[in-house]
Amino acid sequence: MSFPTDLEIALSADIKHIREIADKVGIDREDLEYYGKYKAKIPLKYIDEDKIKNSKLILVSAINPTPAGEGKTTVSVGLCDGLNKIGKKTIAVLREPSLGPVFGIKGGAAGGGYAQVIPMVDINLHFTGDFSAVEKANNLLSALIDNNLQDKKRTLNIDPRTIVWKRVMDMNDRSLRHIIVGLGGSNNGITREEGFNITPASEVMAILCLSKDFEDLKNRLGNIFVGYTFDKKPIYARDLNAQGAMAILLKDAIRPNLVQTLEGNPAILHGGPFANIAQGTNTIIATKTGLSLADYVVTEAGFGADLGAEKFLHIKGHYSGLKPAAYVLVATIRALRYHGGAKKGEYENPNLQFVEKGIENLKKHIENAFKFGLKPIIAINHFATDSEEEINFVKSECEKLGVRAILADEFTKGGEGMTELAEEVVNCAANCGNNFQPLYKVEDAVELKIETIAKEVYGADAVVFSQKALNQLKSIYNLGLDQLPICMAKTQKSLSDDEKKIGRPKGFKVTVREFEFAAGAGFIIPILGDMMRMPGLPSVPAAEGMDIDKFGKITGLS
Amino acid sequence: MSFPTDLEIALSADIKHIREIADKVGIDREDLEYYGKYKAKIPLKYIDEDKIKNSKLILVSAINPTPAGEGKTTVSVGLCDGLNKIGKKTIAVLREPSLGPVFGIKGGAAGGGYAQVIPMVDINLHFTGDFSAVEKANNLLSALIDNNLQDKKRTLNIDPRTIVWKRVMDMNDRSLRHIIVGLGGSNNGITREEGFNITPASEVMAILCLSKDFEDLKNRLGNIFVGYTFDKKPIYARDLNAQGAMAILLKDAIRPNLVQTLEGNPAILHGGPFANIAQGTNTIIATKTGLSLADYVVTEAGFGADLGAEKFLHIKGHYSGLKPAAYVLVATIRALRYHGGAKKGEYENPNLQFVEKGIENLKKHIENAFKFGLKPIIAINHFATDSEEEINFVKSECEKLGVRAILADEFTKGGEGMTELAEEVVNCAANCGNNFQPLYKVEDAVELKIETIAKEVYGADAVVFSQKALNQLKSIYNLGLDQLPICMAKTQKSLSDDEKKIGRPKGFKVTVREFEFAAGAGFIIPILGDMMRMPGLPSVPAAEGMDIDKFGKITGLS
Repeated sequence: MSFPTDLEIALSADIKHIREIADKVGIDREDLEYYGKYKAKIPLKYIDEDKIKNSKLILVSAINPTPAGEGKTTVSVGLCDGLNKIGKKTIAVLREPSLGPVFGIKGGAAGGGYAQVIPMVDINLHFTGDFSAVEKANNLLSALIDNNLQDKKRTLNIDPRTIVWKRVMDMNDRSLRHIIVGLGGSNNGITREEGFNITPASEVMAILCLSKDFEDLKNRLGNIFVGYTFDKKPIYARDLNAQGAMAILLKDAIRPNLVQTLEGNPAILHGGPFANIAQGTNTIIATKTGLSLADYVVTEAGFGADLGAEKFLHIKGHYSGLKPAAYVLVATIRALRYHGGAKKGEYENPNLQFVEKGIENLKKHIENAFKFGLKPIIAINHFATDSEEEINFVKSECEKLGVRAILADEFTKGGEGMTELAEEVVNCAANCGNNFQPLYKVEDAVELKIETIAKEVYGADAVVFSQKALNQLKSIYNLGLDQLPICMAKTQKSLSDDEKKIGRPKGFKVTVREFEFAAGAGFIIPILGDMMRMPGLPSVPAAEGMDIDKFGKITGLS
Repeated sequence: MSFPTDLEIALSADIKHIREIADKVGIDREDLEYYGKYKAKIPLKYIDEDKIKNSKLILVSAINPTPAGEGKTTVSVGLCDGLNKIGKKTIAVLREPSLGPVFGIKGGAAGGGYAQVIPMVDINLHFTGDFSAVEKANNLLSALIDNNLQDKKRTLNIDPRTIVWKRVMDMNDRSLRHIIVGLGGSNNGITREEGFNITPASEVMAILCLSKDFEDLKNRLGNIFVGYTFDKKPIYARDLNAQGAMAILLKDAIRPNLVQTLEGNPAILHGGPFANIAQGTNTIIATKTGLSLADYVVTEAGFGADLGAEKFLHIKGHYSGLKPAAYVLVATIRALRYHGGAKKGEYENPNLQFVEKGIENLKKHIENAFKFGLKPIIAINHFATDSEEEINFVKSECEKLGVRAILADEFTKGGEGMTELAEEVVNCAANCGNNFQPLYKVEDAVELKIETIAKEVYGADAVVFSQKALNQLKSIYNLGLDQLPICMAKTQKSLSDDEKKIGRPKGFKVTVREFEFAAGAGFIIPILGDMMRMPGLPSVPAAEGMDIDKFGKITGLS
């Protein structure tokens, strides 16, 4: 018998009513906003700053992602189950998946194997409507902008050529990347270039994830930069009086969502921003809610640690004051083979030579952790194709750096396969003396902040700024937005800005081609490559294989 | 003290937990899918065909709508409260409002005054996500179409110039009416003309509202017509294997939503299709669920009776087998003044002459009811500015036609102001001998079906078909779609196809300019004028006056 699919495992789980999950963490059943039997929103009043100080935040990140896959979410979910298994009251706090990719190649995103959050189908479809609310808030601002262009009585004199705000849709839809709107004559708007990004790329999503409360949310929404007037004055969302209505559209989305792992442990999924042009991690509200309700929170940071962990620490850390008590770096033997030069077809075959070379990627991420004042724990996400020789090599190399590497067997065994890692996480959170220090100050010059990240985290020799980037940087200074954290938009596949440079690249420069900024969310975005903001569908979209029978039973979702 | 706003009334209501509303109609609390405390989805298993036969369906329609407003939804909600007040177990079954207009001029749509459905804010915003699900299902098909154009390996050879399927967004956004997609080079789709309609105009919405169950839903989704190949073969959604994934996106949207009136009586809101290019009434599933749970169901049909009731009877009646046991026609004295020639500024002033002329509009709708085998009851939706003289005139004119006209005081008094109307509805449902007969057979020729509606319902002398319409009609016959019900797309403001012809126009022809068809929903759409499918925002959008405070309290929503 073959190993069951994620959907089969998810649908055969003994799922508990969400009120039972709430009971475990002391949420009054009457305080929950139920979304069916297995999903609920938690009111903001459960955030307790005193409790947060005494709880332990476990940050999970990874080596640079490869086609072989690392399973960061799977490890995070499994670690939550493992911690609960050894008696530690733990909540997994993660991102919500985007709907678009479900119909493309990727399928869903709620863990895998025996380390999943459920109800899997709901989580992968509309869930509690948060993405949809973000989409509407984003697109309301777009409609207000185009309405202002159209209306000559109350015009703000916006120059349509300068508008940077785009519409969004949570769909893999390449035809919407570059469009022209406002055709069809004088009743139908002003003709201009436009485009749709996928919803996780919306600045509204980034804002939702960095907001502390309604006031903060509204302020940030009002600070969204729209474009310039014909006489070069900046226009923000607040100039269109948009922030109140946008915040109303987010009135439910602001509250975190409670679900459960396959083992009936609590999980909070909330927010899902991109990890290149945005911060790639769940909401501050969700993380704080988790820390208020449990003694341990396992959370993850998108892509590899050079993007995910760095942004978590510098952006989310800056706006929330949160610091990890333990830091788990996920690696797989397969991925280390890839970083050592294994080609497609070779990932699955034991090969110590590849691992010996590829481990350099992991080592660099370990070194980086120490720079941040964090001692990492390495989770080797275990696959049947890993040889003992390879595993032992990784363990002993980590030991040389004073770091423990532990097998993570969550995919096939759930929490039972994670108790050793869980014990080490508890031990480290208590005894490692982790004390996060940012690598830069937000008050530093923008160029310095970028250089710090590039040199310290990526290992680059220098940063090159294109002429275009330098011009845009001038605008950022002119707008007074220079004292914001940096959100690097770079390929996740390499420590450098060139995805072909696997392992631990050396002797390279990175190039800032352009600058963007998120004045509302509160970060500056140096663009180091072509960032995909609207995926396309593949030749055979996953959608084609999906079905629902007359009883409502779903098949083909993966 | 001035009369409170709808929002003030709604927010000060003594709202009950939705499980208490469920108790009233015998739904097991554990069967509900809760969406917070005040909204819930009802499983499809509560549909009981035997019970439906013994319950009474009360259809509410109106005279031709005017700028003065008739308050059809308000009367429907008030009538539900009135029927409950006199001891009849009644559910109001209505449409869900669209989000887009909330930010424009119109504001929300959940009744008004003391005849509202609540929670008003939720109902007007994302509610339970049904519109969003419809939007996603619609736009997934669009993405699959454009993906097929892009992909030369598995191409269906669709001619992009023939694609009639459009994207949708639930937003008042005129700039999206006419757009060009697929710009930006060969990785970004095939360049073609496109446009967005507002979500209620999606055929997916029409389909959801006419589907009996998942099987029926999937079949109808598969039957959506997309366009032609370069060699003139028709392409349907099923050719793209789209229907399974689209149906999955509607897995929750297919279930009706339970809410309550201000007086704590049950209301089901489900689906919200346009009333011109679509059928303008809630889902068959919701109506049947209501009839299965209560002895009386009050439902409404969009716009005036010439569009709303006609389509309810011919389209929804055809696909569901449902027949009204009583039929309520809503009129206001203000609107009758308008139909008698009153201009802006004169609507509010008593003027018997205007009413004497304007009553012709009401009389025609009364005559039409008799043609359908229905004896109408006239509800005069009462305003403070109505004179006794005017009211008495309307009552006596109705009496001459053998019909009762009764004051409806739901706006200021709720159910208490509706008991007389409620008594008459109960009486008529038992004794009027209503027996609905369609005016045409679906097997009739398309031209004959249209002529029947135009002559019998509108009072037209003849129907003119443009050359374009005749050509399109040929395609409808060629596709074998001619034996479907007719869904007239006509101005709601006049019985004719010219909105300036108020009252009861005579000696006119109507012109079918074009044909469209909804092969999935199952109707032919003769287009008799310019139909707005994507509204715009006004000079001062309602959005600008909206706010939410730090406690989440909302203001400015109307």
